[in-house]
Amino acid sequence: MTITITAFERSPDGGKGLARDTRVRWALEETGRPYDVRFVSFKAMKEPAHLCVHPFGQIPTYEEGGLCLFETGAIVFHLAENHAGLLPREGDARARAITWMFAALSTIEPPILELQTAMFGEGDKPWTKERLPLVRDRIRQRLGQLSDRLGDSEWLDGAFSAGDLLMVSVLLRTRPSGILDEFPNLAAYVARGEARPAYQRAFAAQLAVNAA
Amino acid sequence: MTITITAFERSPDGGKGLARDTRVRWALEETGRPYDVRFVSFKAMKEPAHLCVHPFGQIPTYEEGGLCLFETGAIVFHLAENHAGLLPREGDARARAITWMFAALSTIEPPILELQTAMFGEGDKPWTKERLPLVRDRIRQRLGQLSDRLGDSEWLDGAFSAGDLLMVSVLLRTRPSGILDEFPNLAAYVARGEARPAYQRAFAAQLAVNAA
Repeated sequence: MTITITAFERSPDGGKGLARDTRVRWALEETGRPYDVRFVSFKAMKEPAHLCVHPFGQIPTYEEGGLCLFETGAIVFHLAENHAGLLPREGDARARAITWMFAALSTIEPPILELQTAMFGEGDKPWTKERLPLVRDRIRQRLGQLSDRLGDSEWLDGAFSAGDLLMVSVLLRTRPSGILDEFPNLAAYVARGEARPAYQRAFAAQLAVNAA
Repeated sequence: MTITITAFERSPDGGKGLARDTRVRWALEETGRPYDVRFVSFKAMKEPAHLCVHPFGQIPTYEEGGLCLFETGAIVFHLAENHAGLLPREGDARARAITWMFAALSTIEPPILELQTAMFGEGDKPWTKERLPLVRDRIRQRLGQLSDRLGDSEWLDGAFSAGDLLMVSVLLRTRPSGILDEFPNLAAYVARGEARPAYQRAFAAQLAVNAA
């Protein structure tokens, strides 16, 4: 059955790989699944046809036969569960890899999203200049803890997993602010993720759309 | 094998069920698993012994034999995957229920956490009074979309699932602000969750600790 995902017609980052479709493209490439992409404009994203597929009016979504999913984490998990390459088979190792999936999206990403909201959603507010350092410090706190846990390891828990895929993707969003480079082991971890052939294919595919 | 979770020695909410151990207790009760609780003080939570178990210095954690997990979403998923009652067996329905787990934690909860940070982490800042309405409106936007999707349904997708367990738990955190009651179908949905015998047992168990 054909897999169809949705992505931005024009990505807000101009194709630097920070939009969430890159995460799903990467998981598809790691598991060797071909896929089609349906592009959605910002306007169409908030219209009933897309809201049927994604109740929060975002991308990406995932369609395969009669199955229709939203939420990047759930899509990556669905791929990881049904194809080899993204989750260990042994039960305890699998549960720990899934833990890192949730950690990426529920613990590490929220303060990063808060910085984006502070910069773009409240950029014109009188408090923003004074408030931004506080928001950045909350990201640093989490990244410091993650850096301590990762140490010198190649990946978060044994072999590369869907947990690393999501964590690298989330951390990439801290590079423009310079915060990622304050943690050399995390910066090297992200670079290892980016060096994977599957990531390179995913990145190139979304860049090609945005550079066109 | 004995299951041991961690919880606050003293919950910041005084036992109103908003701390994350309630979510894990609820999942344990839904799946009929007995468990022990190890209580952790705010001080101990940031010390090396606990950081070994939870790299971000939080509760809850989950220990069973040699397995040690953190992240509420991952713990609830682990229970749902290994015991009946929290995930449909049929593949597509299961994937959709997992989607709601991620939606609760990755899409609905972040703006709710932002309000908590604004009130408690930045409560003394000169901008807070003017900024709070913006933060509340971002919660309203998400809850409006969720309300539209839920409509008159009893649960988010067919029978009660781990997706509903997490969504109800997350929405409970919007009740103190009054925002939950602005969406009558969501308030009724949360009340249905709270009426479940497993929730009542979980709530009573954590309240007993905090009322002692």
